[in-house]
This record gives sequence, C-alpha cells and structure tokens, in this order.
Amino acid sequence: MSGYVRELALAARQAQAAIAACESIRRYALLEGMAVHLEAGLAGILAANADDMQRAAAAGATKASLDRLLLDAARVQGMAAALREVAAQPDPLGTVTRRDVRPNGLVVERQRIPLGLVAMIYEARPNVTAEAAALCLKAGNAVLLRGGSEAAASNAAIAACLHAALRDMGLPEAAVSLVADPAREHVLELLQLVDLIDLAIPRGGESLIRFVAEHARVPVVKHYKGVCHLYVDRAANIETAIGLLVDGKASRPGVCNALETLLVHREIADAFLPRALAALRAQGVEVRGDAAMRSVDADIAEATEADYAAEFLDLVIAVRVVDNLADALAHIARYGSDHTEVIATEDAATAEAFVSGTRSSAVMVNASSRFNDGGQLGLGAEIGISTTRLHAYGPMGVESLTIERFVVRGNGQVRHPRPAARRGGEAA
Amino acid sequence: MSGYVRELALAARQAQAAIAACESIRRYALLEGMAVHLEAGLAGILAANADDMQRAAAAGATKASLDRLLLDAARVQGMAAALREVAAQPDPLGTVTRRDVRPNGLVVERQRIPLGLVAMIYEARPNVTAEAAALCLKAGNAVLLRGGSEAAASNAAIAACLHAALRDMGLPEAAVSLVADPAREHVLELLQLVDLIDLAIPRGGESLIRFVAEHARVPVVKHYKGVCHLYVDRAANIETAIGLLVDGKASRPGVCNALETLLVHREIADAFLPRALAALRAQGVEVRGDAAMRSVDADIAEATEADYAAEFLDLVIAVRVVDNLADALAHIARYGSDHTEVIATEDAATAEAFVSGTRSSAVMVNASSRFNDGGQLGLGAEIGISTTRLHAYGPMGVESLTIERFVVRGNGQVRHPRPAARRGGEAA
Repeated sequence: MSGYVRELALAARQAQAAIAACESIRRYALLEGMAVHLEAGLAGILAANADDMQRAAAAGATKASLDRLLLDAARVQGMAAALREVAAQPDPLGTVTRRDVRPNGLVVERQRIPLGLVAMIYEARPNVTAEAAALCLKAGNAVLLRGGSEAAASNAAIAACLHAALRDMGLPEAAVSLVADPAREHVLELLQLVDLIDLAIPRGGESLIRFVAEHARVPVVKHYKGVCHLYVDRAANIETAIGLLVDGKASRPGVCNALETLLVHREIADAFLPRALAALRAQGVEVRGDAAMRSVDADIAEATEADYAAEFLDLVIAVRVVDNLADALAHIARYGSDHTEVIATEDAATAEAFVSGTRSSAVMVNASSRFNDGGQLGLGAEIGISTTRLHAYGPMGVESLTIERFVVRGNGQVRHPRPAARRGGEAA
Repeated sequence: MSGYVRELALAARQAQAAIAACESIRRYALLEGMAVHLEAGLAGILAANADDMQRAAAAGATKASLDRLLLDAARVQGMAAALREVAAQPDPLGTVTRRDVRPNGLVVERQRIPLGLVAMIYEARPNVTAEAAALCLKAGNAVLLRGGSEAAASNAAIAACLHAALRDMGLPEAAVSLVADPAREHVLELLQLVDLIDLAIPRGGESLIRFVAEHARVPVVKHYKGVCHLYVDRAANIETAIGLLVDGKASRPGVCNALETLLVHREIADAFLPRALAALRAQGVEVRGDAAMRSVDADIAEATEADYAAEFLDLVIAVRVVDNLADALAHIARYGSDHTEVIATEDAATAEAFVSGTRSSAVMVNASSRFNDGGQLGLGAEIGISTTRLHAYGPMGVESLTIERFVVRGNGQVRHPRPAARRGGEAA
C-alpha cells in the first residue's frame, strides 16, 4: 500500500467538517457556484474530453463506451442543470424526522447528520464526477472520487471547476478529492480505509461491482445489474403494454433500468405477442423466446437459461409466456436482480398482488422501467441505484447520503435515581 | 465449509416469505404467542439454564459473565414482557412513508418492506435469542441466531418456545433458525452467504465484533464499544451533573452505554471535582485523572492515553479538565467511539453547540448516557446499538429491520413517447 489514497482520504475527511458546518444557504450557494464554474469552464472541459476521446479511440474503445465518455456543450449544460437541481433539493441536515416525549419527560428527537466521507468508484461517464460531488456536498459530506482512467483528463477538468467554486466560498478543496493516479492498487487501498471512509459506492459494470464487493472492508452500497422485467397481465391494456415494452427496451438499451425480459400471461399471448414482435422489430430489437413466442414466428431463437438471467444492455429481449401471476413472480424471484419490475394491468387487485409479490427496489404499475431514476422520481439526481436492501434501496439522492441519529434532551433524568439524593434537574 | 449453515440459512430464507405475507394482526398474535410459550416454558428454560451455568462455572467463567448468562423467573418474565412490547409497536410493513405526484402524473410512493434474512451473532445473554427473534419477525424477516456456546442449552430451550408459537400459527419454524453447532467455522461460513443473508448484526465483546468485521462479506451493522463521555460545562447545575455521573458510571458499569470518561470545564472544576470524587468513591468507583483531578487528591492515579481510549466496563473512570467546549469536543473526536455523549449545562447555546459538534449515535443534554437504549428511547426493544453511520445509527428497533423501496403507479407513462403512436394509458 502506497499510502497515497490514505493521504487523500485523510485530507477529505478533515475538510468534511467545514462542509458540515456550512449553513444551508452556503451549501446552496456552493452548488450554484459549481454550476457557474462548469459553464464558464466549458472550453477547457471539452478540450480535455477531446484528449480522452482520442486516447480511447486509439486504444480501440467500443462505440458504446466512446458515447459514454463523450462530452459536448449540451452534456456539460446538463451537468450544470443537474447541479442546480440538487442545489434546489430540500436540505436534509438537522431535519428532525421524529420527536417523542417519553413518560419521564425526556424529549427524544431523530436528526439527520452527514455520513462523513463517501467514496465513489465509477467508470467512463464524466458527469458522475460533478453529480456525485454535488449530492455529497449538499448532504454535508466530503467525497473521494475514483473515476475511470479513460476519463482522467475530463474528470480533472471538471474537478478543477468544482474546486474553483469551493475556493470562492473559502471552503477546502479537499472536500472533493480526486484519485488521479489510475493504478488499480489505489482502489484496493481505498477499500481498506475503515477508519476514514463511511461508505463506498461502486457504479459501473458488473466486474467493477464484483471487485469492490469482494475486496471492500469499508461499508458498500451496491449498484448491481438490472435484469428488469415487464409482466403483461391478462387484464393489460395492449396499447399501454406495447408502449411500456418499447420504451423499456429500446429507448436506451445500455442502461440498468432498461427491460431485459418480457413475461406474458397465456390468456393475452395470442393478442399481444404478434404486436409486441412487430413493435420490437421496428426498433431493431432481437427477440429470443420460449415455445409460445416462437410459435408466432419460427425465426425467433430459443431463449436459454442464460438469456433469462442476462442483462443484455443491448437491443435484445428474452420472452416467456406464463400461466398466471404466480408463475411470473416465480420467474422474477429466480432470475431477477432486485432492480425494477413492471406490470401492465388494468386490474387493481392484480397490480397490488404484483407489488406485494416482488421485493425489487422499484415496482412500476403501468409505468416504464426507465423511470427508476433519481431525477425522474423526484430526487433531483442520483448517486446510484442501490440493489442492496440496506441503508438505501433504489435511486439514492441527497437524503440517502445522511443518517438519523438520536438527540435527547432532559433536565437531569437518570435511569436509577439514588434514593438519598434529590435529582438535580428537579432542583434546578 | 460444511454447508451446515448454508442449509439453515436457505430454510430460513424460504420461511421468510410466509412471515412477510402475514397480516399485521397475525404477526402481533405470533409475538404474543411467543411470550405465552416463554412463560409456560419457564421450568424447562430454568433447568436448561442451570446446566449452562454449571458448565460455565466449571469452566471458570467470571462472575460478570455468569451474571450475563443467568436466567431466573424475573428475567424470563422480562423477556416475555419485551416480546409484548415489541408486539405492541406500530407495524412498519407496507407503511407509505412518502407519496409524491410527479408532473407527468406518476404517483411515487416509498414503502417499507422487510430486509429478508437477518443473522444475529451474539454472546452470553440468552434474552437476545427471544428479543432478536421478536424484532425480526415483527418486521417480516426471518432470523438466523448464532449465540454463544456457553448459553447453548438456554438458547435451545428458548428457541423451542418460539418454535411452538410459530407452529401454533401454522408458520414455518425455520423462520427462527438456531445455529446449534458451536464450531467457530460456522460463523465464518455464515459471514460468506451473500446470496442468502441481507444483514449480519454482531453483538458482544470487541473481539467478536472485530472478527465479524474482518471476515464478513455479507453487510454488517456494527455494534461497537461505547467510550461514552460526560462533559460538565461551566454552566452546569452541579446536582444534575453529579446525578448524571453516578448513574452513567455506577448504575451498570458493564454495559456499552455506561460512562467511561468525565470531562470538566476548568471554571467549574474547583466546585465540581471534590463532590464528584466523593460521589464516585461512595459507589466504589476508581478514579484516574489528569493533573487538575490529582490536585484534589494525591492518591488518584494518573490517567494514561490508554485510559482515555478505554471501555473499562468496570467501576473505573478517567477524568480530564478542559479549557472550553472546543477542547471537550476535540477530546471526544479523538478518543470517542461514536456511541453516546452527554453534556450537563444550563446554557442552551452551549448545549446546541455540543449537539452539533459531536456526531455520535446519541447526544444527551442533561440526561444520562444510560438512556441510549431502544426500550428507553421508545423503540420497545433493540436488536443492537449501531455505531456505524449507515442504515441505522443508535438503537435499532423494528423499523431498522426494514427498508424503503419505490412503488410507482401510472397509466402508461413512458420516458420517450413514440411520436407516431398514442400513449396506451391515454387511450384507455
């Protein structure tokens, strides 16, 4: 271990106190300042990104990964807009979420405080640098950012803008610390810093998440793959179901809230499957199916066990016809990843049975899986979508970067009053 | 790995669905039934406990650990009472904690669901067997219990009562599963079961917690040591402060919410220290202090660095005189364990500065550290006191054994409406 990351984490942790001590309005101004500096720094960010793109292209990066890496004026504007949305979120710090008075007169409050130091380990997308920093600072945390090496220049240029905003406010730059050296051993070092890091959030491909999960001794909230299902119930409105299917599969197939598997109730299969097939093919989607699906078109490949477990991240979908809701739920329990499940049905009782029969982070009734996103669900932005049923489950916004603690106010109460002495509080 | 614990965990996980599917009133009845069976099984429990006590005494257990192990009629009654208190807690399951309507008409709810399977790894105290099971079942979870080998017979007798209550309700006994084989390799096996266990809670001595933290790949919420401080401000009411000191240190020194260190503002030291010393000595407490404390009585031993970091769990206290609040906060930040801190002051501004200057799981203003306890703070009972700022911080009750997920209801909303087609929901 080089100690390089420990030094960064130590500085970030020390800087955190200054962020936590900021009044609400100063954290608001800080995020606004970060947005302004991003906009002002546009040319520099684009130049740095062009370097990253050139290096990535020369190294033979795929078209999809080049697209994730690419920044243009609109995307930088989008980053600034996301920062302003986070700035405008309600301030969670100090919020008293509950207040009880106990029979002995103690006033027991639950109050939100920052987690402390959050480490973000991510790949490709440079916008994560700005958005993760904004979410962490809004909640009074410091953040340690370890982005992908392919985006090193872009991330450094973005971080420079964030640092400028911190300087403007007289706040320590170390509150947003970038692990600039790309060596993988630094990730390993980071994951052992139990005395400094309160939470690590890995965000990226499955191999990154597995690496983090296997080596972390710091607490981790995982953002795993999304094997998301659409279940078309026999009581579905077919137009609705087609809309959810096309949006879920084809609007952006490379993201975790895209659909991977379509389950169809047997009683609606004849009416639904031919239309579904036509709609999917019109979007260039490859369909793999079971016998019922293949009976619609013999050219359809047979869906394997691996297909039902797959997060294709591509224009491919697996289809299965099921006998009833219970079969659909059993399929989801077996192959799902606790991310997002959708039901299309006009039957309220079936909808409720589906909701209570799944335990995924988001369950959608007649709404696209693509809405499982912090911005879409009203959180302003997200630092990840947790598929771990601990601390946070689903999109993580500002509030997920805080914790509730107990504040108890009394006037001298003790658990075992001494018989001989008066209680001080009562005497006061 | 023997697979012994995996089999137990698999059965518990399967049984969990039946618990989660129980109506609120049935989970209430289940916990009441557990209390009834504990009372009815008193003789058997005491006989089993006598065996454990005999074995422990023969093995040379300390008086303190024999006291933790001992059950008598009153303690079994206490267990039954705790079960009834947990039963009477509000049911968290299905609770909608937030509900927003998005501009596109989506109704976004946050809803509490069970964590799944909770593993409890604990030592000595057999009451944990009943209370942890009750808290987990109330929240719709299954529980895997691995108690200390010294309490094996007591735990088995208690579990038999809990199983009888499950049988009465037609629910699977595996929802409360006991790791009966005491081999330590089984704890190691348990800590690797990432596909089956949603949360592990270690509760016991520091070496147990460290063992779990080092070897766990499943998520862990730690219940670490309590190095709890009382800060006596210059504006303290001296009677109040003496009451908090004696209750915090002497009412039950072997527990984690007992005081370990006393910090005293220099301006009140002359008035306070002699009285504090007398009150502590009257309770048989050994005092170790800095120069200011030792100037009161030359017989007082010098407090070392190790004393200020120590969780004595005994009738010993370390004392330091500080120049001001900032010094007190710096001492707590350096030596504290994020458990419980207390201030005695009649000055409201100082109280608030103390609250915002510490980030421990519980901060007490003019109230004893001994109130950092789930029962005392209104949670009915506790499965532990988390000192990890993740998921839960402070005493963990029923609600801490659930997680909020997203339920989204729409009428066909999609993120990228196809220009050519009407939206299904609108057509319906």
